[in-house]
Amino acid sequence: MAGIKLHGNALSTAASRVLAALYEKEVEFELVPIDMIAGEHKKESFLALNPFGQVPAFEDGDLQLFESRAITQYIAREYASKGTPLIFPDSKKMAILSVWAEVEAHTFDPPASKLKDELAMKPFLGLATDFAVVEEFEAKLGKILDVYETRLGQSKYLGGDCFSLADLHHLPIIHYLMRTQAKKLFECRPNVSAWVADITARPAWKKVVAMRAY
Amino acid sequence: MAGIKLHGNALSTAASRVLAALYEKEVEFELVPIDMIAGEHKKESFLALNPFGQVPAFEDGDLQLFESRAITQYIAREYASKGTPLIFPDSKKMAILSVWAEVEAHTFDPPASKLKDELAMKPFLGLATDFAVVEEFEAKLGKILDVYETRLGQSKYLGGDCFSLADLHHLPIIHYLMRTQAKKLFECRPNVSAWVADITARPAWKKVVAMRAY
Ligand SMILES: N[C@@H](CCC(=O)N[C@@H](CS)C(=O)NCC(=O)O)C(=O)O
Ligand SMILES: N[C@@H](CCC(=O)N[C@@H](CS)C(=O)NCC(=O)O)C(=O)O
Repeated sequence: MAGIKLHGNALSTAASRVLAALYEKEVEFELVPIDMIAGEHKKESFLALNPFGQVPAFEDGDLQLFESRAITQYIAREYASKGTPLIFPDSKKMAILSVWAEVEAHTFDPPASKLKDELAMKPFLGLATDFAVVEEFEAKLGKILDVYETRLGQSKYLGGDCFSLADLHHLPIIHYLMRTQAKKLFECRPNVSAWVADITARPAWKKVVAMRAY
Repeated sequence: MAGIKLHGNALSTAASRVLAALYEKEVEFELVPIDMIAGEHKKESFLALNPFGQVPAFEDGDLQLFESRAITQYIAREYASKGTPLIFPDSKKMAILSVWAEVEAHTFDPPASKLKDELAMKPFLGLATDFAVVEEFEAKLGKILDVYETRLGQSKYLGGDCFSLADLHHLPIIHYLMRTQAKKLFECRPNVSAWVADITARPAWKKVVAMRAY
């Protein structure tokens, strides 16, 4: 059995989502770096793992997966008895967790990624930030975080009383945004701010951060 | 016990995703229409069900959910013994299903929704279609459907050998696009074309279509 292999880099938000899950579950794995500057993710051997040519890709023995959130779900289910329980056995509690996991994917991620691109990636690449875009998407993200503020007043974590995939999936983008002016959106909302402090301080996430140059 | 209530309208792509799942599972439910033209989805009573003010919202007894793909997952798991099995019990098969469900959400849906807006919604509302945008997104969707064409040559359905949530989640947008010029993208790819014919002919989906004016 070949064990678990994660193809990707800690700098990729999608790959670090999976890294965080692997460390939370305390399962052993091998990280196979993908040289994206050299376009390795568009080459035949990588396309065999993910036909869309994006990191991460994942192997567990003969099982091959891609899509970060599908991989984290698999890890959480398959290694249920190890490390942090990232999903809930109760069907109704699990349904609530899924709601907030979907909110991350469909509501939080699009504006947050846009802000990450403008405020973190563009300066990193020496490109000019478009501050009109920043203003528009800060306003959008602010309204979404108002809903998070209320939710986090009702339960300690987004998915319920315990840390779960619903929280974990947010970590990579929050990590970038907390290093930009957009951090004010999180800091001015007390429940959101406490939640960010809590989830970013988890030892598993700190291991991911330690692997990154930025 | 109050039973299942779905708040929304068959014209909404997100609500019809849930309707399709309910009919596939043959579970009884009540449809509570939401008058979106009157802004009912932004009023207090609806915001209590979905704080983001979007349809659908869902109730099963005292459980309240939103986000269409979280609702379909709950229905598939909770009513596992009824109707069509929309998920797979085997953990590795389920992981592959999740990959393709994520592909629908992250890769297929954004360009397909953009084309739906330009080619179906704008004409419906008497607005002008932007054909430069159409061209850009038809090219994007075409590349994605190339990957689908290969996948559907390997397995009958996206998620595996049987129809599942991974296919079902595509139905509402495909329904719109097959009534526009974008249908050529599906029709010129034989495996994709056969898959579209198969999944749109399902009796459960036909019930959803019969509820719509368009
Ligand atoms: N929805 C995918 C997104 C993957 C993704 O966007 N990966 C980026 C790096 S974070 C990538 O590979 N980009 C290169 C490309 O799209 O060509 C997931 O969650 O895994
Ligand atoms: N990700 C959500 C999307 C829901 C959604 O976009 N609903 C639309 C109708 S299809 C809506 O309520 N739009 C009104 C609005 O956003 O104000 C889901 O899948 O349920």
